[in-house]
Amino acid sequence: MKIKKILWISFVFVLLSFVAAASGVSQESDELLRQARVVFQPLPSVMPSPKDNSSTPAKVTLGKMLFYERRLSASGGISCQTCHPMSTYAADCIPKSIGHLGKINPRNAPTVLNAGFQFSQHWRGDRPSLEDQADVSLLSPFAYANANYDEAQNRIKSIPGYWELFQKAFPGEKEPITHDNIARAISAFERTLFSSSRFDQFLAGGKKVLTDKERKGLNVFLDTGCAACHNGALVGGMTFQKFGVVTPYWKATGSQEIDQGRFDITKREEDRYIFKVPPLRNVSVTDPYFHDGSVNRIDRAVKIMAEVQMGKRLNEQDVESIVSFLGSLTGTLTQEVLTVLVLPPSR
Amino acid sequence: MKIKKILWISFVFVLLSFVAAASGVSQESDELLRQARVVFQPLPSVMPSPKDNSSTPAKVTLGKMLFYERRLSASGGISCQTCHPMSTYAADCIPKSIGHLGKINPRNAPTVLNAGFQFSQHWRGDRPSLEDQADVSLLSPFAYANANYDEAQNRIKSIPGYWELFQKAFPGEKEPITHDNIARAISAFERTLFSSSRFDQFLAGGKKVLTDKERKGLNVFLDTGCAACHNGALVGGMTFQKFGVVTPYWKATGSQEIDQGRFDITKREEDRYIFKVPPLRNVSVTDPYFHDGSVNRIDRAVKIMAEVQMGKRLNEQDVESIVSFLGSLTGTLTQEVLTVLVLPPSR
Repeated sequence: MKIKKILWISFVFVLLSFVAAASGVSQESDELLRQARVVFQPLPSVMPSPKDNSSTPAKVTLGKMLFYERRLSASGGISCQTCHPMSTYAADCIPKSIGHLGKINPRNAPTVLNAGFQFSQHWRGDRPSLEDQADVSLLSPFAYANANYDEAQNRIKSIPGYWELFQKAFPGEKEPITHDNIARAISAFERTLFSSSRFDQFLAGGKKVLTDKERKGLNVFLDTGCAACHNGALVGGMTFQKFGVVTPYWKATGSQEIDQGRFDITKREEDRYIFKVPPLRNVSVTDPYFHDGSVNRIDRAVKIMAEVQMGKRLNEQDVESIVSFLGSLTGTLTQEVLTVLVLPPSR
Repeated sequence: MKIKKILWISFVFVLLSFVAAASGVSQESDELLRQARVVFQPLPSVMPSPKDNSSTPAKVTLGKMLFYERRLSASGGISCQTCHPMSTYAADCIPKSIGHLGKINPRNAPTVLNAGFQFSQHWRGDRPSLEDQADVSLLSPFAYANANYDEAQNRIKSIPGYWELFQKAFPGEKEPITHDNIARAISAFERTLFSSSRFDQFLAGGKKVLTDKERKGLNVFLDTGCAACHNGALVGGMTFQKFGVVTPYWKATGSQEIDQGRFDITKREEDRYIFKVPPLRNVSVTDPYFHDGSVNRIDRAVKIMAEVQMGKRLNEQDVESIVSFLGSLTGTLTQEVLTVLVLPPSR
């Protein structure tokens, strides 16, 4: 009788423990989701267009062609996809892109996936819009290297197949083949380059979408303070910050050169070593890291960030969890994104 | 009565004339098709694989990835698609391709569409197979610029995602990531790059597929003697010939340098100015022309060929017809050809 009672009590106790544990897990998961929703947002379904460049199918199609159009460049060898090949998530796997006739670009090429959501473009944020980025690239000695806009425009004008495409994309304009419209069309195409991931499903309430390790990583990411800068829909991409708040970044990264960041643009002391906070979407598949591509491994990049930004030394396990969480930010590439269009022949 | 009779006779006469004319057109068309079938063949449905590189879906998939794989190159900036972008019919619209860190290649990049049907590769035919072409490119200072094969192999070995792909493509091999297998996979993919055109439908009996102008052009093409070299399934690509039989080619093309052709390979006097006869499939959309890309316009290229090879001066109308016929050799690019695959991340 006594034994039976003890057995019963034990059974009930074990049962209650399980229920408590299960509800604990669920509560923990609910709490994590609640916290995550405070700092992150799912990728919106529309990338905002500026007033003077509303998106149309004709413009997007033209822009997609121009994205792959090497005849926009002085050498005939450079197109947007030179630095942003879709097969590697619209980034190019090297520290600094190789541009016009082998010229090495000053900084690492960020992916153009989701780029239109950012508050500005380029590492120093000196390109206020996608349009400006594309437009300026036409003259950049590292990129298209045209001596002037006429050069680029005239080359496109000399290709008869483009005439109708520009007319359709910019109806009512008498001479639509201009560098501004080239940049507009490319930007309209770039605004179709969404890449949502499992993290969006998690934020939408799909708690089980993330693995235990990824959830743990998200927790460590939040606890460590990474989300102070890496937040919002892009997990970054919305503010400027100093790289190396606690210690100089180049001592940790081993950078060959010391990039002054926005200081070189504004000449204001407070902008020294200030860079745009990079979005972390697709970060796992777009190495190497930092503005100079000085670090190859993502685990090392995570460690360095904790160290130079917050003076924290993460243990191996925490680094591993964060890396695991960052993997959930790897998006899918649609067939549309992976398909090129046939360009009109030269003559 | 007399008038009625005259009217009847006139009517019958006119009717007979029409019938005769129609049958003449048909006979002429039949005769043209007959003649065409003597010298040309439709594109076969299978590109022949060498014995040691039979094609499998796994190999083709891997090869397609490697075709776009810049990490095969010393700089990280060059892939097969650098010289052979699919959006412009797998040729690059410039006289000579821009390779490793801006190095200008010695000759124009031919399209890789249908290339596996040719008897050899490159302008001088010094690459006996697609495999050899891909393999040698890995070390070419103008292309991948690896110091040795280990460099290329080790870079691919360092990408975990490739291990399984190579194992599937080369089952049973212990260490499948070798330069030979890289070249084999790329070649297997290239053997899927068919590009048939309206001309194949014509050869299959679809006489109405070609326009009047194109048929006339085909006639002039045959009459002029172009098909002496440009024949077979590729309308070329199967023999060596001297460029400039009647007069030196560079006087007509305005070439900056005099390329000695196969002489530089064999050192035999009879090989001076000898080049592979280029296939004319997709010629309309793969300008500029000749081994050095010295001529932009296809009409000028046609004129030059008649002049320097056969000492003939074609009139404008004949040139125009031939150009029109050559347009019927422009193939279609399948969605498959226009789609890239996602490559495995570096780490």
